[in-house]
Amino acid sequence: MKREVRAFAPASVSNVSCGFDIMGFALRGAGDTVTARLSGKGGVSIRSISGSSSALPLDPAANTACPPVAALLARCPGAGGIELEICKGIPVGGGIGSSAASAVAAVVAADALLETHLPAGELLELAIEGEKIASGAIHADNLAPSLMGGFILVRGYNPLDVVRLPVASGFWCAVVSADVEIKTEEARKILPRQVPLHDVVTQTGNAAGLVTGLLTGDGALVGRSLVDVIAEPARRHLIPSYDAMREAALACGALGYGISGSGPSVFALGSSEETAGEAARAMSRVLRDEGHDSTWLISPIGVRGASVIA
Amino acid sequence: MKREVRAFAPASVSNVSCGFDIMGFALRGAGDTVTARLSGKGGVSIRSISGSSSALPLDPAANTACPPVAALLARCPGAGGIELEICKGIPVGGGIGSSAASAVAAVVAADALLETHLPAGELLELAIEGEKIASGAIHADNLAPSLMGGFILVRGYNPLDVVRLPVASGFWCAVVSADVEIKTEEARKILPRQVPLHDVVTQTGNAAGLVTGLLTGDGALVGRSLVDVIAEPARRHLIPSYDAMREAALACGALGYGISGSGPSVFALGSSEETAGEAARAMSRVLRDEGHDSTWLISPIGVRGASVIA
Repeated sequence: MKREVRAFAPASVSNVSCGFDIMGFALRGAGDTVTARLSGKGGVSIRSISGSSSALPLDPAANTACPPVAALLARCPGAGGIELEICKGIPVGGGIGSSAASAVAAVVAADALLETHLPAGELLELAIEGEKIASGAIHADNLAPSLMGGFILVRGYNPLDVVRLPVASGFWCAVVSADVEIKTEEARKILPRQVPLHDVVTQTGNAAGLVTGLLTGDGALVGRSLVDVIAEPARRHLIPSYDAMREAALACGALGYGISGSGPSVFALGSSEETAGEAARAMSRVLRDEGHDSTWLISPIGVRGASVIA
Repeated sequence: MKREVRAFAPASVSNVSCGFDIMGFALRGAGDTVTARLSGKGGVSIRSISGSSSALPLDPAANTACPPVAALLARCPGAGGIELEICKGIPVGGGIGSSAASAVAAVVAADALLETHLPAGELLELAIEGEKIASGAIHADNLAPSLMGGFILVRGYNPLDVVRLPVASGFWCAVVSADVEIKTEEARKILPRQVPLHDVVTQTGNAAGLVTGLLTGDGALVGRSLVDVIAEPARRHLIPSYDAMREAALACGALGYGISGSGPSVFALGSSEETAGEAARAMSRVLRDEGHDSTWLISPIGVRGASVIA
């Protein structure tokens, strides 16, 4: 048995506009790394948090990385304890799945360390235990893509039904993150509790259209479908220059645009790496002109999920 | 120029459970036939209605076949008038797109008669003029499949965006129609005006899952996705033996089950002609045991839409 295992889990875009609470996809170029180490004392503890968000709580009950590992340990009587070292590559509260990546990387590392070799579905159920801390609700649209990679549809939660969409190749994503923090839990509180039937029809039509466009490689349909009539109207005012960034992205040829997670990150989809790159730079310039620093990345759709680092 | 043209338009299943107001597919084995004939008097008139529902109004303002033809005539100054003979092959108020098929067959026949040769999108816009009479609302989820065939996603209404889904082969449908009539307009009045956010997430997840299953040929996913948390809870009590028919269909191996249109017809999807046939007979037996006559048909998914009859 190894004494320590290190795992990486990528950042992810969730919600994906009309895919509110049901869709997400993994990103290349950002992620969290967690090292799990056997420890003499029982339970889960955090030895250190480094990287971009080192101010996170070391208290195991308050960090999303710990509950999944504790739940896994509970299945392994006599295994002792596990100590975690968390290296954050994803800003907290940025809207690209920071808490999910920590939970996923931790449970993947612990699974390899304890040699439990659980299937992805069971690892996901464990990781959800961590996400509850961050959002106050059970959702898996960051966790599933961070764990499994690719573009994920969470068809249902009761029971959990996660489907990896066979997305046509060629789609790229630009993500731009402004220098403001939005707490997921706060962003959920401002959502409407009831939705007019007319808007439900619009949202389901767009969600079905987005899936159709992604699977058939119809970029124009993807673009027409990236319309969110539920969360975006409630949340867009939280994000600086939201509409101006949309205009800038579309002017570069992006197919569509929306809020990543609950923001402040936004995403634009494009049909090529070049378009995604131009959209990212254009959106970032809009923020700079309004006095906001930002970071950005571009990524193909369909990248791999979490993995153990040799 | 021909003096008369006859066109056929098939019946269709709309709503398709979680696809409320956005999905529909054409059926083989039932449809309306409309003959359009040049007439000396101006405007649109109905000469006769025959077939399964001969009690329909001859008044052009009250029959769904006429407004689309009147709208088409308005584009052809000097064309005179058009007289229609309607042969109903679809029961009225049965939930398999009777009013839509009349509107589609009429406008397709008139389009050929007047040699306007409009593209499908424009014919659909005209046909919608007729559907308003029947349902009191603009919807296209019966019209579009009846006109274009196959399995249709109405992604949006403003502007109208109709997508023909490239459904994998092998799916079959059983439709059973009990001997009760449900008026579409009445069935709309009992729908919820507001939907809890939690149910919106469930419905969009299922709609996206249904499309994914249909496009990838994943019958189990299609079955898991055929869950409607919006219209079915409000309408199921209108349909005799609704739950018992579901049980009977699933016991035969059907993938899933739901209300066709606003009922009383119900549909079950299956992975073979045999399964669809057994499900249809089983559902029909349930109705008979409860004292209801019924008719049934089975059809592959993906059949052709309206056409001119030579």
